[in-house]
Amino acid sequence: MRQNVHFVTLSTPDLDAARRFYVEGLGWEALLDVPGEILFFPIAPGLVLGLFEARKFAEDVGASEPTGVAGVTLAHNVGSESEVVDTVERFVSLGGREIVAPEPGAFGGIFHAIVADPNGVVWEIAHNPGWHVSDDGTVSFT
Amino acid sequence: MRQNVHFVTLSTPDLDAARRFYVEGLGWEALLDVPGEILFFPIAPGLVLGLFEARKFAEDVGASEPTGVAGVTLAHNVGSESEVVDTVERFVSLGGREIVAPEPGAFGGIFHAIVADPNGVVWEIAHNPGWHVSDDGTVSFT
Repeated sequence: MRQNVHFVTLSTPDLDAARRFYVEGLGWEALLDVPGEILFFPIAPGLVLGLFEARKFAEDVGASEPTGVAGVTLAHNVGSESEVVDTVERFVSLGGREIVAPEPGAFGGIFHAIVADPNGVVWEIAHNPGWHVSDDGTVSFT
Repeated sequence: MRQNVHFVTLSTPDLDAARRFYVEGLGWEALLDVPGEILFFPIAPGLVLGLFEARKFAEDVGASEPTGVAGVTLAHNVGSESEVVDTVERFVSLGGREIVAPEPGAFGGIFHAIVADPNGVVWEIAHNPGWHVSDDGTVSFT
């Protein structure tokens, strides 16, 4: 099994709220939008984020009842500390929730915040000067 | 906020089991391995999967107690139906658990299975003839 993930799929109790937040709010473009079922967003080369209606998600994985998401965070890196602040403000203005206000991280010059989208999906918004992505997509930490 | 995810981080109760499964078992190469803390795996250009020790994860997101992962699946696409079967067998032989045995999907000629890693992280292993990734990483469905 090669070291690739092609889809990350999240159980989504309120798909309409997700569409308002990501598509109408943040301006993201869906690869596919099937109301009441699933929203697909390309989020990296070859990798798609799926927001899958929670009852259908539960059926597919054999879970007894629909849930939201727990134990997962998505991180989005930006180019400066002020961009962290701006992104968090935008998140909150669109119906997101601030969990940890922008603050310096424990090491490496990181400056970050923790926010949640309207379905409770937790995002870290970070400026990390030690994180680099080369032209071929290789990630490195310094 | 651009349409990118740079890290997907999963709360991981047993990081040693994760290392045995992904590194020693599947042969994945960690970008960074800090025992007792975190394992980072590049899984797409510019995107890193983080397996983060569950108590530290809970502290970081302000959760009251450590948990595993719920409401998320990772998908890995392979080139044929037989490769689905082989990948599931490998998963199980390394300590994973089969949740749904390989079977045809509801539409599109998909053939897939649902398995879980030793920490309960749920994977879909799929052959999907309608899914394409172009050279620049653009995903399309047909």
